[in-house]
Amino acid sequence: MTEATADRTALTDGGRDVVEHRQLVIVGSGIAALSAATYAARSNNDPLLFEGDEPGGQLTLTSEVENYPGFPEGIAGAELIQEMKTQATRFGAEVEHGIVESVDDSGRPFRLTLTNGDVYTADAVIVASGASARTLGIPGEDELMGQGVSTCATCDGAFFRGEDMIVVGGGDAAAEEASFLTKFADTVYLVHRRDELRAEDYWADRIREHVADGDIEVLWNTEAVEVHGSPEEGVTGASLVRHPEGHPTAKLDADETEQLELDIGAFFIAIGHTPNTSFLADTGVVCDDAGYVQTVGGAGGGQTKTDVTGVFGAGDVVDYHYQQAVTAAGMGSKAAIDADEYLESVADGVTGETADATPADD
Amino acid sequence: MTEATADRTALTDGGRDVVEHRQLVIVGSGIAALSAATYAARSNNDPLLFEGDEPGGQLTLTSEVENYPGFPEGIAGAELIQEMKTQATRFGAEVEHGIVESVDDSGRPFRLTLTNGDVYTADAVIVASGASARTLGIPGEDELMGQGVSTCATCDGAFFRGEDMIVVGGGDAAAEEASFLTKFADTVYLVHRRDELRAEDYWADRIREHVADGDIEVLWNTEAVEVHGSPEEGVTGASLVRHPEGHPTAKLDADETEQLELDIGAFFIAIGHTPNTSFLADTGVVCDDAGYVQTVGGAGGGQTKTDVTGVFGAGDVVDYHYQQAVTAAGMGSKAAIDADEYLESVADGVTGETADATPADD
Repeated sequence: MTEATADRTALTDGGRDVVEHRQLVIVGSGIAALSAATYAARSNNDPLLFEGDEPGGQLTLTSEVENYPGFPEGIAGAELIQEMKTQATRFGAEVEHGIVESVDDSGRPFRLTLTNGDVYTADAVIVASGASARTLGIPGEDELMGQGVSTCATCDGAFFRGEDMIVVGGGDAAAEEASFLTKFADTVYLVHRRDELRAEDYWADRIREHVADGDIEVLWNTEAVEVHGSPEEGVTGASLVRHPEGHPTAKLDADETEQLELDIGAFFIAIGHTPNTSFLADTGVVCDDAGYVQTVGGAGGGQTKTDVTGVFGAGDVVDYHYQQAVTAAGMGSKAAIDADEYLESVADGVTGETADATPADD
Repeated sequence: MTEATADRTALTDGGRDVVEHRQLVIVGSGIAALSAATYAARSNNDPLLFEGDEPGGQLTLTSEVENYPGFPEGIAGAELIQEMKTQATRFGAEVEHGIVESVDDSGRPFRLTLTNGDVYTADAVIVASGASARTLGIPGEDELMGQGVSTCATCDGAFFRGEDMIVVGGGDAAAEEASFLTKFADTVYLVHRRDELRAEDYWADRIREHVADGDIEVLWNTEAVEVHGSPEEGVTGASLVRHPEGHPTAKLDADETEQLELDIGAFFIAIGHTPNTSFLADTGVVCDDAGYVQTVGGAGGGQTKTDVTGVFGAGDVVDYHYQQAVTAAGMGSKAAIDADEYLESVADGVTGETADATPADD
């Protein structure tokens, strides 16, 4: 392996030196990527991770993870990520700064170009680049993220039992999170900038029932403009604006626009995630309408295969539904196992187009 | 919830008292079951686990787990299980002794009958009953099980210090067990019916090193046909057959098939597992030809649904391919999330047939 890798580093790519060739490049550095890295390193696939512009991924935004199996007292999101990174590197995985800008899948090996212009080649690629929670961009939001402001009700709801809470959003995720939070909240205020939910009927029905039960109050045609509190005391309140025709922040000067203040203990943002797949634009990897990478799924092996042979997907860049730390970890390990099978088949000459690929050691 | 549950315990079932009604019963107590239990408890679904006849599942048979993400130094299998059990019970899950013998899915709630005759009812069931070690079915195997024949090197290896030992198999488990046994054995004979291992590279490398060190001898293209010994003196030897093209027991009459006799003190079987699904025989849950529970899979929600609404599957009883601790944990959490959605819909009267089900707490 080491010898073959050394040979490859001498390759040039249209005049630009290829910095390095690797059997396996993993795009991402969150749970799915690190879990894949541990498995891939133990399979001698010499993985290199590019950590992207949110090192550690979504989990680093969560203060305490109480539902990752194996940690009965919970573990800080950032600490869990650090433990996984230590584990992956212990077995030989390398994590590098770098943001993958594009992938060329027109030949083999794959060519990955970073935003700094560096080019790497790889026999296989695991896409574990995650999804980024959309945020509002209002004062208080960044400062209190993880201290009462959260993009994940499932992760953080239980920390605020008995408190009033805000959920911002009007889609399925917002409705689901608001419903979920009724287990813990005194009142959940669902803040939506229009006068009807975008959520599917199932979730709209659940919201209606919770409103009837007095668990949820929907603030229609309303938007949050500021979150109040401090890292020490957490979230204490929020300022909101309302306009009878909706989208009030676009109408701040209108006579009918009114301002509201709410005392709350937690502020959940559920206005969606954007999967980080722009670097795949020029490849044959197929994404769904929302941009999530489509994988084979099903039973048996190869569940993480994408439409491009040799490219695998895992974690929140694929999973738009469960999005849990442990589900991402599980999918990451599957992707590494699938990639290993692929790399073995390449080494054995089963895949003709990659007959010149680096042989696996055996 | 508690009040509703109390009412239900008064129900009778064909003259037999129903011991208890629960929103959710989880069949199993391994990684998938405990991961599901943590999620279900946090979703206020009040889960009850029946631990079955192998409490803690397969992982308790593993000495050290090095690839479960989050534990860079590794963790003992039994300890990881204990941590997960502590975690699940911390949030309110209950784990009880008991082996589910049958499930009646002809009405709702489901009725589960234990081997001791006790009957429980449940609004939803998660099947996480795992898979049990397979045996060879050769003379001497049953008689000497636990007396020198074993399916668990971790459990039993230390009893045979200084002896020669056989490990049968060619996958990860066989390679891991053979490596582990070198601590105790004089020589470990790894008996595999083909001419190469199925094990991941990591383990294949370990085997090669042990062979180079003289600790392990691999008997390629070889199968065991009888174990010798007695309950009093334990295992004394084994008869084996070998054919240069492998699978010798299918070629016993061939000229090239030779017989070998080995003097050994212990005989370990590591040839895979059979899913524990016999208790589902009278239900509509569909299993594949090998007995694994079929789930919906795919993308989005409901991946762990079986063919029976309200019954979900997770872990090694479903997954015949990856079978990793972390994949089981991931699937367990998905099953709990799917079950929670189902229970919410039942509570809301969306599912007509279960309109009388216990309402969720809220």
